[in-house]
Amino acid sequence: MDPDAVAKAFVEHYYTTFDSNRAGLVSLYQEGSMLSFEGQKIQGSQNIVAKLTSLPFQQCKHNITTVDCQPSGPANGMLVFVSGNLQLAGEQHALKFSQMFHLVSNQGNYYVFNDIFRLNYA
Amino acid sequence: MDPDAVAKAFVEHYYTTFDSNRAGLVSLYQEGSMLSFEGQKIQGSQNIVAKLTSLPFQQCKHNITTVDCQPSGPANGMLVFVSGNLQLAGEQHALKFSQMFHLVSNQGNYYVFNDIFRLNYA
Repeated sequence: MDPDAVAKAFVEHYYTTFDSNRAGLVSLYQEGSMLSFEGQKIQGSQNIVAKLTSLPFQQCKHNITTVDCQPSGPANGMLVFVSGNLQLAGEQHALKFSQMFHLVSNQGNYYVFNDIFRLNYA
Repeated sequence: MDPDAVAKAFVEHYYTTFDSNRAGLVSLYQEGSMLSFEGQKIQGSQNIVAKLTSLPFQQCKHNITTVDCQPSGPANGMLVFVSGNLQLAGEQHALKFSQMFHLVSNQGNYYVFNDIFRLNYA
């Protein structure tokens, strides 16, 4: 399995889900999963999705600029590093962001163990 | 040991070394360490430092804007996510960048197992 292909497929799936059905992201996290969102630390799939669905915008579109990936160690983990921009409905300018995911394999299925998101202010 | 304090100390040490004695970074990597630098993949401490010391600028100064950290799993690993800007000598404008490190503990000492660096173009 090509790690770069897995990373690209994950990124495509993640942001398509975020932009069309944010609550559906719950299946990508587990109880031990961690999110740092603009410095706020949140743990557990339910809490993470509660945070993401309560963000103060309804419609958005992520456009991805770069995707890098590396194996994170011996246990089939994978680090995925993304940069791109986030267009909010009704806003003229897109927001630049960077985000990293640590994907961990659970019986062949990857879930997000670590997620760190930051806007890159100009 | 407070993970945020470890992350901040690492970040301070890493960029101070980068800006003052780039070749000294070699001790922070090991043979299995990986660097993705603007999409180019490099492995091993010697190769990584050869890349970093061959970048087409001599003097630079990293200014850090944000540092996030999370434990990466059960084995005392730590993910450190940095955003900031990079001022090159003689250049008017600083370059914005994002970088992530996966620090792995080897008998109590952390080294960089994963390193992904990207400039954030405006």
